[in-house]
Amino acid sequence: MDTVQVALDLAGIFVFALSGALLAVRVRFDIVGVVVLAVITGIGGGIIRDVLIGDVPPASFRDWRFFLVPTAAALLAFRFHPRLRRIERTIDWFDAAGLGLFCATGASKSLFFGLDPVPSVLLGVVSGVGGGVLRDLLAGRTPVVLREDVYVVPALVAATLVVVAYESGWFPAWVPLAAAAVCFVLRLLALHFRWQAPRASDLRD
Amino acid sequence: MDTVQVALDLAGIFVFALSGALLAVRVRFDIVGVVVLAVITGIGGGIIRDVLIGDVPPASFRDWRFFLVPTAAALLAFRFHPRLRRIERTIDWFDAAGLGLFCATGASKSLFFGLDPVPSVLLGVVSGVGGGVLRDLLAGRTPVVLREDVYVVPALVAATLVVVAYESGWFPAWVPLAAAAVCFVLRLLALHFRWQAPRASDLRD
Amino acid sequence: MDTVQVALDLAGIFVFALSGALLAVRVRFDIVGVVVLAVITGIGGGIIRDVLIGDVPPASFRDWRFFLVPTAAALLAFRFHPRLRRIERTIDWFDAAGLGLFCATGASKSLFFGLDPVPSVLLGVVSGVGGGVLRDLLAGRTPVVLREDVYVVPALVAATLVVVAYESGWFPAWVPLAAAAVCFVLRLLALHFRWQAPRASDLRD
Repeated sequence: MDTVQVALDLAGIFVFALSGALLAVRVRFDIVGVVVLAVITGIGGGIIRDVLIGDVPPASFRDWRFFLVPTAAALLAFRFHPRLRRIERTIDWFDAAGLGLFCATGASKSLFFGLDPVPSVLLGVVSGVGGGVLRDLLAGRTPVVLREDVYVVPALVAATLVVVAYESGWFPAWVPLAAAAVCFVLRLLALHFRWQAPRASDLRD
Repeated sequence: MDTVQVALDLAGIFVFALSGALLAVRVRFDIVGVVVLAVITGIGGGIIRDVLIGDVPPASFRDWRFFLVPTAAALLAFRFHPRLRRIERTIDWFDAAGLGLFCATGASKSLFFGLDPVPSVLLGVVSGVGGGVLRDLLAGRTPVVLREDVYVVPALVAATLVVVAYESGWFPAWVPLAAAAVCFVLRLLALHFRWQAPRASDLRD
Repeated sequence: MDTVQVALDLAGIFVFALSGALLAVRVRFDIVGVVVLAVITGIGGGIIRDVLIGDVPPASFRDWRFFLVPTAAALLAFRFHPRLRRIERTIDWFDAAGLGLFCATGASKSLFFGLDPVPSVLLGVVSGVGGGVLRDLLAGRTPVVLREDVYVVPALVAATLVVVAYESGWFPAWVPLAAAAVCFVLRLLALHFRWQAPRASDLRD
């Protein structure tokens, strides 16, 4: 189980780091800035999760792979981004994949730490959303979770699936991956069909 | 005492969440963004406080009411904001109420955790200021604590009142509420009379 | 050893606070905003470091000097800034000094807490970079670590020097100070000669 957790964590870090690196390329940071934003995006959500559940120093400071993976992602993005036709859309895709993976592993890590179901769902969502929020704040744009209409809901779905499976006592190793996939697909559907939540329409001042 | 602490915490979360929800409405986030900003504003200061005093997972992750209350506040704000004539002023009022409540409960929680008087004052201020700073950063405006001339001082007064009462051994349950009220009134006076602190006047470059 | 650590910490807090105070003056905050930004810049990196290594409440909440020093720095900056000819350059110098000092003390504190060499280097860098990132986020500009081409590298050098000396078993009390000086000089050279890292050049959309 622990191997699965680490593998999914690293996969989430990789794709989130790609989203951060491509955004850094887009706003024309230099190569060091690209690496820094990629690393922070990749490991930010996990660090917030670990600090909140009291697992310090956070996992990413105890395992050099947690820095190697996002650095590699940054260098790949820096080298190959000119081949990308639509950089914004690619950022969204990697962001969606990272969101799903982090929500799922965040929820399962919280459960393993003995947290109750509802806090585990919430910590899953915070883990998933955290990296993207840090990325957007540092790059100076509105955090995706506030900007996108359908973002928190897929995250909630993924974390809830993990917690329900775990609490029901039926928790094969592929459950977090499946939950991450559900979140990813929901996000892509929301992006493709431009699902929108209602917006406040009438402001007096 | 614990019931009082929780009740004041929830009251502070409620009013801070209203300030976050109204700001989200004002910058035209959709309903999910309104809920997210309200929740982060409501529980942000308390999470920072709990992480800093080592009470993890933070209280707001162990008690579902800490999410229910700001969500309800967000939905209320989303539904009823067209009835508000001056949304900016209303945000300031709720912010002032949240500031007072969080400074008072932050200071008393720090004292209960065995911290010394001065750190307890400072943690009270950090608890009170934290939610508003997160709200403003996420909504892309200068944090209120830096923007407003008289903001930290009422917070310091409230936290100091709580600590002095506690250290003097005379600490009836209404002290935090009274301290919060003092902070609230000071903030409203500062807003009403536009109290200003001196500003640097002479810049050469 | 502990006295050296505290002395270097306070020196780092002082210079970082000066950088924060001068930036606050530059963006025309009032005196309270100047003090607040100075304090956050001064102690922010150390708080992040302490939360990540699990030393809570952070050192700066247990020792009143950690608030007195940045407050004094803020008042000095507020009083004497009109004598500064080039405020931006002065901010950069103080920032460079704070970066070196915090990287060195952050790395050595992590080592004393029993962390492994690589995490200690990384925590040193995070300690050094953290204060400036908070300062720039709160003042609404791109964080220096992402904006400046050669910023993380001097930080890495300083933290690595400390860790290598410690692991080699040869660790006289002046090593952190020397490492901080190396970082400081590298930063100033990078600023003076405008060293630049490669930048992504070809964006299709």
